[in-house]
Amino acid sequence: MKATASANANIALIKYWGKRNEELILPQNSSVSVTLEGLKTVTTVDFDKKYKKDNFTLNGKKISGEPFERIAGFLNIIRKMAGSGLKAKIFSKNFFPTATGLASSSAGGAALALASSKAIGLDLNKKELSLLARRNSGSASRSIEAGFVEWEKGEKEDGTDSFGKQVCDKDYWPEFRIIAGVLNEEEKKTKSRPGMKQSVQTCPFYKVWVENSEKQAKQIKKFIPEKKFTKLGELAENNALMLHSVMFNTILPIVYFSGKTVEMIKAVRKWRASGLECYFTIDAGPQVKIICLEKDIPEIKRKLKGIKAIKKIYICKPGDGARLINKHLF
Amino acid sequence: MKATASANANIALIKYWGKRNEELILPQNSSVSVTLEGLKTVTTVDFDKKYKKDNFTLNGKKISGEPFERIAGFLNIIRKMAGSGLKAKIFSKNFFPTATGLASSSAGGAALALASSKAIGLDLNKKELSLLARRNSGSASRSIEAGFVEWEKGEKEDGTDSFGKQVCDKDYWPEFRIIAGVLNEEEKKTKSRPGMKQSVQTCPFYKVWVENSEKQAKQIKKFIPEKKFTKLGELAENNALMLHSVMFNTILPIVYFSGKTVEMIKAVRKWRASGLECYFTIDAGPQVKIICLEKDIPEIKRKLKGIKAIKKIYICKPGDGARLINKHLF
Repeated sequence: MKATASANANIALIKYWGKRNEELILPQNSSVSVTLEGLKTVTTVDFDKKYKKDNFTLNGKKISGEPFERIAGFLNIIRKMAGSGLKAKIFSKNFFPTATGLASSSAGGAALALASSKAIGLDLNKKELSLLARRNSGSASRSIEAGFVEWEKGEKEDGTDSFGKQVCDKDYWPEFRIIAGVLNEEEKKTKSRPGMKQSVQTCPFYKVWVENSEKQAKQIKKFIPEKKFTKLGELAENNALMLHSVMFNTILPIVYFSGKTVEMIKAVRKWRASGLECYFTIDAGPQVKIICLEKDIPEIKRKLKGIKAIKKIYICKPGDGARLINKHLF
Repeated sequence: MKATASANANIALIKYWGKRNEELILPQNSSVSVTLEGLKTVTTVDFDKKYKKDNFTLNGKKISGEPFERIAGFLNIIRKMAGSGLKAKIFSKNFFPTATGLASSSAGGAALALASSKAIGLDLNKKELSLLARRNSGSASRSIEAGFVEWEKGEKEDGTDSFGKQVCDKDYWPEFRIIAGVLNEEEKKTKSRPGMKQSVQTCPFYKVWVENSEKQAKQIKKFIPEKKFTKLGELAENNALMLHSVMFNTILPIVYFSGKTVEMIKAVRKWRASGLECYFTIDAGPQVKIICLEKDIPEIKRKLKGIKAIKKIYICKPGDGARLINKHLF
């Protein structure tokens, strides 16, 4: 009754921001992401009658309070699916720094869905795993699959058509890169979950955001198989600026940008104007990620070295989806 | 045939961004501003047959090219109104630093409208002066009047109902202050005129901007006579963030923000959270202006001293509208 899975984080090119159903975690718009090699979470889940209650340890630290309640709620969904009353012990380990703006919840949610379903005796296919992962964290639905993935918003009220589908596998476009540069910044203050809820309720631009993102998700789904890098980059940048505009116009305003975020935005636009093709994207935090192709990595690295605010960089290519591994964490 | 006028710059609390008629300079939405004491332009206009062509000197420098063409176009409007063919010599002087984000074009346009109409022999009332100033620069229509002014967008195609009207005189709320802190930044790259045109044409949020700004202009017009400072400040901040979101989502994106702009935004929000009531507003440039009341000036000054990026500050109260003066510049 013990299983271990690993899953990689993903970065959205077309973002997810806002639910149409809070309980089922159904999004207002479709989103498209890249699962990234090497930014992984490994999770071991053990369901056994020897446990009196659920128990969750992340990076060696026992988790309690609201983060634990989320996990316990998710385990209840799994237990209901399997018709089991067993409690679980979970160990999880992130192999990348937290607070980098790299979405550890996407990797964690995907690894947990795979490990816990296997441990409880369910044998789910990728669609079923993605549907399950979504119930833990929306973005986790996109980390089940490798490479480029679309989380289709779906239409059904029960959410059974709202899951991650592969657009292209990780080896289809091996030159594609995302660079996460870690700015010397504090962690975000507004959590995504209440933040996006406020946007849905109060942002006057929200409806336009949903319509445009939906359109952009459809467009980028064409650009990826055609490897239209310029079109993809422009669209991703546009979507990120649109996202942060929605945040700015939420009541109260959500300003994830720091001064350094703006400096990075301006730097990327300047480099591009001078012929170095790269684009930025920004999630719910101050960190700026750069979208580029392998051939431009040396020049971009050189330029990033000139930016004092950057402590460290992570260069990522499209990576694997969630998979079972044999080595357990306990 | 010589006349001299002075006019003060104004800062919009609800912004003007986008025209519905380019030639007549008719706005998409109403805007509301404060005319500011001490940030003045003085302009002398002389219409005389001794001049073979129009001639414009600003801050001691002869102006040519596109800025001159704008002035010449405006003089043609005046000449047509007066049935005159005389050429003009114009001297203009700004008594505040350019590139501070303090809208020198609003002061300049208002002073030019008054001085040139008087010099050519027209005796216009304030409504007529504002209608005329608007033809030079939209924001200039708001600098004809003193204190708090609304530029009503109007409905008519000929623009005769689109002019600045006083909401409250400058002495109605003498405790009201705008602090312009001059950040150590380059001047803006995208000029407002082409920038706003691009927003009208390409920004997916533009329609929402127009609807919301129009609503906000109506609201703030009530808050001013009632001296509801908190409501006014919140609305002005919201409108400024909405404006810059529209800019961000214009194709190509217009990013007037610098890193320091974001740092200032965060500082103001932090001060307010700690009980110091002040709000920010931002125009088409990186500079941040602080909206506050007289009683809080010492504390805000003290805090601003701690911000290295600020070179200089200007503390302004509601000021006079355009008026004729006796001392000519030449």
